[in-house]
Amino acid sequence: MGMLSEKLRNLYTRAEADALYLECDFLRRYVTGFYSTDGYVILDGEVCVFVADARYYEAAERALQGSGITLCEGAYPKALELLKKYRTLAVPYPFTNVSSFERLKAEGFGLKDGMPALKQAMLIKTEREISLIRSACSMAEEALLKLLPALKEGMTESEVAALLEYEMRRAGAEGTSFDTICAFGENGSVPHHETGLRKLKFGDPVLLDFGCKTQGYCSDITRTFLFGDDKKHEDFKKLYAEVYTAHELVKEKLVSGMTGREADAIARDYFESKNLAQYFTHSLGHGIGLQIHEYPVLSPKSEEALQDGMVFSDEPGLYIAGKAGIRIEDSCTLKDGKAVSFMTKTERNLVIL
Amino acid sequence: MGMLSEKLRNLYTRAEADALYLECDFLRRYVTGFYSTDGYVILDGEVCVFVADARYYEAAERALQGSGITLCEGAYPKALELLKKYRTLAVPYPFTNVSSFERLKAEGFGLKDGMPALKQAMLIKTEREISLIRSACSMAEEALLKLLPALKEGMTESEVAALLEYEMRRAGAEGTSFDTICAFGENGSVPHHETGLRKLKFGDPVLLDFGCKTQGYCSDITRTFLFGDDKKHEDFKKLYAEVYTAHELVKEKLVSGMTGREADAIARDYFESKNLAQYFTHSLGHGIGLQIHEYPVLSPKSEEALQDGMVFSDEPGLYIAGKAGIRIEDSCTLKDGKAVSFMTKTERNLVIL
Repeated sequence: MGMLSEKLRNLYTRAEADALYLECDFLRRYVTGFYSTDGYVILDGEVCVFVADARYYEAAERALQGSGITLCEGAYPKALELLKKYRTLAVPYPFTNVSSFERLKAEGFGLKDGMPALKQAMLIKTEREISLIRSACSMAEEALLKLLPALKEGMTESEVAALLEYEMRRAGAEGTSFDTICAFGENGSVPHHETGLRKLKFGDPVLLDFGCKTQGYCSDITRTFLFGDDKKHEDFKKLYAEVYTAHELVKEKLVSGMTGREADAIARDYFESKNLAQYFTHSLGHGIGLQIHEYPVLSPKSEEALQDGMVFSDEPGLYIAGKAGIRIEDSCTLKDGKAVSFMTKTERNLVIL
Repeated sequence: MGMLSEKLRNLYTRAEADALYLECDFLRRYVTGFYSTDGYVILDGEVCVFVADARYYEAAERALQGSGITLCEGAYPKALELLKKYRTLAVPYPFTNVSSFERLKAEGFGLKDGMPALKQAMLIKTEREISLIRSACSMAEEALLKLLPALKEGMTESEVAALLEYEMRRAGAEGTSFDTICAFGENGSVPHHETGLRKLKFGDPVLLDFGCKTQGYCSDITRTFLFGDDKKHEDFKKLYAEVYTAHELVKEKLVSGMTGREADAIARDYFESKNLAQYFTHSLGHGIGLQIHEYPVLSPKSEEALQDGMVFSDEPGLYIAGKAGIRIEDSCTLKDGKAVSFMTKTERNLVIL
């Protein structure tokens, strides 16, 4: 039986229950560092047990050596047997389904939400986590740099997304962090455009929103550029300059201690001053970690204080329905009180291919 | 306000509540046919409303034309406002998180599990659904046929997975249906091996478990083959022949009306007769649809009767820890009482490259 790490001891203390119990994949990964599609994690003040079935046992045995985590073969009945000695369990409500919840209730456990403790712990990234996110960002940027010279007239949005994803994989990513968005021309005006069969034409604006994962940790980046200059995009260029200014302003002015609302307002107030705020139809940013959308939230409603060690996106955008959409997004962290981008290889200025 | 389709009217009737209420993405897609990362669906006996925010409104408007589904702009507060007129809501417990559930409870709704109704509806695929799954299977097979001649000594598992995923995308897939498993040599003995940096060597067994999606519908296929014959794999070849026989036996003997347990037993009993059953460490198969794992379950515990129109995997496997792993998997459907594979382009017999 191994010694619990400080991270796990703190997490247990924060959970304020006899044990923290996890069924959800990315939370199991957060606690154990090991990925599996199924499994159960039980953390109390002395021990952290990972219950894995035959499919994962061999791999888990190798991965968990020296981690201080105890491996136990079995499935739900085994987890339940191990839980019997506790009265109260903390389970993460947003990542626990009602069926599991009712099943635990029927066993007589006192249940409370373990998410506040997990959220608190996951909000501030460790050095290891930041370095994994940095790697994931670097892979995404490398892939973009490989993609750009390969773009050709007639390629579909889907083909471009496929090539970009392939290049992320070749750069070492284990997969995408979300479905790649590739939008040509006015398709960019739909912030979550579904990548389709439209063909690339000379002069088209191209919006790419993409990211990849390494050891579960995500990157998130958006670039908008012109595939050749047909001299018909003067309005687009003007809008681009405004989005660029808003994006850079955020990095310049965002400091630790600001709330998510104040961070969002840096971009929103700037657009307001240019009478463009109605075209900025989403929030400035979201936390990034094992999930592509996590805490903190950088939106007009967020009163959460931003702190060193948090990781989030800076992604202002302007969308003119049916005409054009521009978004510039970097994944960033707060370090020594200031915003630092993980993106160091690709241009944020307007690129004209 | 559009007319409800028969599918939606039946679903509503089965739910036995004032309304069926959905927050989960793939269930929203099942009901509306439209994909979004956020949104709310409310179905009663007369109308089906999809509540979408600004990010999706424009695309949803185009997609839902003529569908009989009413689009409404907004977020959770809007959904809640529309729900006020109902007393009882059916929500799918396995796909509703406890936070949402408690939020609805606090509003005073009577809540019941809508999953039995959804499961019942989703279990039997429509012609459209079967044709989408067939397409997804065809894309996966095409990709494999493109991949095989491109395999070279020294490629890593990750590179091979990346190339396979790229070829699925090029074949028209919108993405993978799960993380591609690529295992060289004895790595195949971990049924859910995490694809890594091991390099391909002459004579290596290669196990590929992969699939892709089209319009949300999944394919699932596994092939195991030899990358050249170094004449050191006589045991492997014998095991392969047994897995192949089990796989084919299932297709031959499985008929509508059998239970999931009886289907599983076709393969399991065969392995038992060869004293190999202890190496068949998972179930025979799982349902496939908008999710990669859904109903029916083909396992020793499943008493569910298999019926025409169901779609599931036939995937017997044998795993000798640290030595070798072999799995052969097709996605299949039941038609006119018999099992029919969607895989028509790739060999199931042992391929030696």
